Amino acid sequence: MIKAAIVGYGNIGKAAHEAISQAGDFSLEYIVEKEEISSSVPVLKSVSELSGIDVAIICLPSRLVPDTAQEILSAGISTVDCYDIHTNILNLRSKLDAIAKQNNCTAITAAGWDPGTDSVIRALFLAMLPKGITYTNFGPGMSMGHSVAAKSIPGVKDALSMTIPTGSGVHRRMVYIELEQGADFDTVSKAILEDEYFAGDQTHVIRVDSVDRLRDVGHGVNLFRKGVAGTTGNQRLEFNMSINNPALTGQVLVSSARAALKQKPGCYTMIEIPPINFLCGGRDELIRELV
Amino acid sequence: MIKAAIVGYGNIGKAAHEAISQAGDFSLEYIVEKEEISSSVPVLKSVSELSGIDVAIICLPSRLVPDTAQEILSAGISTVDCYDIHTNILNLRSKLDAIAKQNNCTAITAAGWDPGTDSVIRALFLAMLPKGITYTNFGPGMSMGHSVAAKSIPGVKDALSMTIPTGSGVHRRMVYIELEQGADFDTVSKAILEDEYFAGDQTHVIRVDSVDRLRDVGHGVNLFRKGVAGTTGNQRLEFNMSINNPALTGQVLVSSARAALKQKPGCYTMIEIPPINFLCGGRDELIRELV
Repeated sequence: MIKAAIVGYGNIGKAAHEAISQAGDFSLEYIVEKEEISSSVPVLKSVSELSGIDVAIICLPSRLVPDTAQEILSAGISTVDCYDIHTNILNLRSKLDAIAKQNNCTAITAAGWDPGTDSVIRALFLAMLPKGITYTNFGPGMSMGHSVAAKSIPGVKDALSMTIPTGSGVHRRMVYIELEQGADFDTVSKAILEDEYFAGDQTHVIRVDSVDRLRDVGHGVNLFRKGVAGTTGNQRLEFNMSINNPALTGQVLVSSARAALKQKPGCYTMIEIPPINFLCGGRDELIRELV
Repeated sequence: MIKAAIVGYGNIGKAAHEAISQAGDFSLEYIVEKEEISSSVPVLKSVSELSGIDVAIICLPSRLVPDTAQEILSAGISTVDCYDIHTNILNLRSKLDAIAKQNNCTAITAAGWDPGTDSVIRALFLAMLPKGITYTNFGPGMSMGHSVAAKSIPGVKDALSMTIPTGSGVHRRMVYIELEQGADFDTVSKAILEDEYFAGDQTHVIRVDSVDRLRDVGHGVNLFRKGVAGTTGNQRLEFNMSINNPALTGQVLVSSARAALKQKPGCYTMIEIPPINFLCGGRDELIRELV
C-alpha cells in the first residue's frame, strides 16, 4: 500500500481524497489543513509534522506550491502537485529536481489536466505529426484565475468568468458579475475590460442577481492538431473531454502519486513519465489489456 | 545523428523513409530488401549484412517480425517494429526483452497506431478515469487482414474489406469483390460470410468491376471512454483521428526509433516509454512548448 498525505483540503484536496478512497493501492495517513475540518483521517496543521509516508499530494493554490514542495522533499518525502503557472514550470521543475535528488525522493510537478494530461496528448500528437499546428481550446468552463481577477475590481461583489472556445485556440470570456450596492455597471464593466487578464480577449461583462446560481465545476477541452506524418499532409488528430474540474484534477494527482514512486529520484513533468506507471496493476496484465 | 536502417521496403518502409527524410536527427544508412529496388541509399539483401548502425526499423509483415528482430538484436543493434498481432505482443516483448538485454540494446515492439499510439491514449484515459468502459472504434478504412482473407476465397479475383465503425467497438465489414471469370456470386458471397474472419461481424459482400478503383489508404479511429474520476461519474474522454495509414505507421516507427536509443536495454511497448522520448529536441525546450 502507498502511504499518502493530502496537503490542503479545498475542492482539489477533497477530490484527491475521493480518488484515494476508490484506489485499491493507497492508504491515506494524514490530511494537512490549517482550517478546522472534521475527518476520520488524522489532521495535521503543518507539513513539518509529516513523517512515515511515501508521498504527499499537494492540493494548494499554485503560488504556495514551490515552498511547500521544497519543504516536504527536504524531509525525504515524494510529492505531486498541480502547479499551473505554465511560464514557471520549467524553473520549478529544476528547483524541485535538485532537492528531490539530494533527498532521494521524487516530485511530479504540473500534474493536472492542463498542464498535465493535455501536455501528454500534445507530446503524443507531436510524435505522430512532427510538422503542423496544435490548438488547445478550453471550455466551456469557469476560469478560477479570471474569476478572482474580476472579483478584485472595485464595485464587484462576486464574479464568475466563463471561458468559451471559439476555435484555433482563441477564447471568448463571459464575465458574470454581481455588483456591490451603489456601484455603477458601466464603470465596473470598463475596469474589467481594461484589466490585463481580459484586455487581450474578446470579453463580455454581464450583470446578474446571483453569481452563485451559475456555478458549475464542469469544464472541457478540444485539442486539435492538423499536420504532416512523414511527407503526407492533412492528417488530423483530435482530443475532446467533458469533465468535472476538481474531480479530474484530484484523480490525476493520485495516479501521478502512484507514478512518482516508480521513478528514480528527481522531478518530472507528466510527459517524462511512462504512461503505464500511472496505473494500478501488474505490468503484463496492463500490456495485455491496453496494447 | 541517429544511424538507421529500414528493413522491408513496402508501403510502410517507404513511409518510414519519407519520415526519416523530414527528421533532422536521422541518417539512413541502409535499406534491407530482397526484391530489386532503385535507391540512392545502399540496399542490402539480408539483415545479416547490417553493421555500424544504431537502430533498424522493421517494416515487414507481422509474421516475419519475431525472427527478424531477434536476429538484429543478437548483433547488438536496436530495433523498432509495428508487430500488430495483439494476442502475441506480450510473448514477443518477453522474448525480445531477454535478447536485447543480453546484447546491450533496445527494442520497441508494437509501435504503430493500434497497437501503438492508441495504446498510449487508452493508458492515459485509464489513468484519468480508472473506472468505466473504453471503446475503440476503427475506420472507415481498409483492413489488410480481412482483404487478404476475402481474396483467398475461391472465385475471388481481388477484394477489399472496409471496416466501418458503428459505435461501442462494434464494426460492420463492407467487402468489395471482383469475381474470377465464371465464378458464382452467391456461392462466393456465402463462403465469405462463413469465413472465420467475417462470421462474427455484420458483413456485406458487394460485387464491383474494379477493386483497384476503391483503394484508399486513409483510415480513422474514434476512441471513447466514459467513466469515473474519483467518485464523479459521467466524465467523457474522446480521441479522433483521420490519417493516412502507412504514413502514420512509418512516422510512429521513426519517432519510436528515436525513443529506443534513450531507453535502457530491454524491450518496451509504447505505453512503457516517456512520451517526451519520442520527440526531437532538447528536454527544456520541449517542456516549455508542450507542458
